[in-house]
Amino acid sequence: MIKISVKTAKKREVVDITDQVNEEIEKLEIKDGICNLFLTHTTAALTTADLDPGTDQDYLAAFEKMVPKLNYKHPHDPGHTPDHISSALIGTSLTVPVEHGKLILGTWQKVVLIEFDGPRERQIVLQFS
Amino acid sequence: MIKISVKTAKKREVVDITDQVNEEIEKLEIKDGICNLFLTHTTAALTTADLDPGTDQDYLAAFEKMVPKLNYKHPHDPGHTPDHISSALIGTSLTVPVEHGKLILGTWQKVVLIEFDGPRERQIVLQFS
Amino acid sequence: MIKISVKTAKKREVVDITDQVNEEIEKLEIKDGICNLFLTHTTAALTTADLDPGTDQDYLAAFEKMVPKLNYKHPHDPGHTPDHISSALIGTSLTVPVEHGKLILGTWQKVVLIEFDGPRERQIVLQFS
Repeated sequence: MIKISVKTAKKREVVDITDQVNEEIEKLEIKDGICNLFLTHTTAALTTADLDPGTDQDYLAAFEKMVPKLNYKHPHDPGHTPDHISSALIGTSLTVPVEHGKLILGTWQKVVLIEFDGPRERQIVLQFS
Repeated sequence: MIKISVKTAKKREVVDITDQVNEEIEKLEIKDGICNLFLTHTTAALTTADLDPGTDQDYLAAFEKMVPKLNYKHPHDPGHTPDHISSALIGTSLTVPVEHGKLILGTWQKVVLIEFDGPRERQIVLQFS
Repeated sequence: MIKISVKTAKKREVVDITDQVNEEIEKLEIKDGICNLFLTHTTAALTTADLDPGTDQDYLAAFEKMVPKLNYKHPHDPGHTPDHISSALIGTSLTVPVEHGKLILGTWQKVVLIEFDGPRERQIVLQFS
């Protein structure tokens, strides 16, 4: 088990973490297996995405539009509630296969962290089985 | 592999199952590893969430608003269809790391079962690797 | 690790892959464990669902309605963007328990591939731990 940090630079951002995860796989000399990623936060998410130029903005625009802005009850900061909803909906755990020392992904597929309340330093736990 | 039951008390409810899962980890004397949770139902979901007081109602209100009420074709009870949509969208499998005999979670992060069609007794399969 | 193919027949479709996965489990003579599924695509998704007759159309109608049609920036084909959003939201990884040589699922629960941009031949990586 290792823990990696991802520094996000904006309030809302899609960060491609594929290369960072592959570098850890290389350092640990893992050749084949299963890579489990878990994000220990409630206003960010992990998923896979197509990241053609501009597409990161498309994901953020769509999530912003989909998650309703209601009269939320959150005691400290109800304005954060849509960020919590997006995180719970997209998810914080992801399991990706590893082969020949790299994540197996589709041609256009990337592993991404979606930041909804940055900039922050986010922690991801990586485990291999 | 063990199976645990979660009794839900309301039609729609966010249930914090973190302590219940941690108790099973303690009983099984698992120190470090990966905890896989799988929910064997189609009108409930598993995810991680922030559970400040009142926030459970925020999640339910948001999902209720997001999932459209269309003229659904479900043969027995089309009124249940939004519950099925929410379950498929949020998901029924979750993988969380374990360290020092406990789930690794963020400060405000909880493992939750979201009930969309209770009250019921829900089954979760727990596996460790 | 094995890779399986799923041929989709329509532009948008919910395909029940439960039997296909169970056949692979039988061939590999896996009795108990964890089945990790990973879909190497960005316009399709994996999840669990209730598949009563007609319900497949309900899922597709709901996702179509939920994901907004905005002025997307995707450089090649912005019309595909809602398919990418649905894929990232529903997810491409799924972990299901195996017992007595079969996936453990609820009475009405199926493992499904949701196609948003078919017809295509989709690849799924299956791993067991």
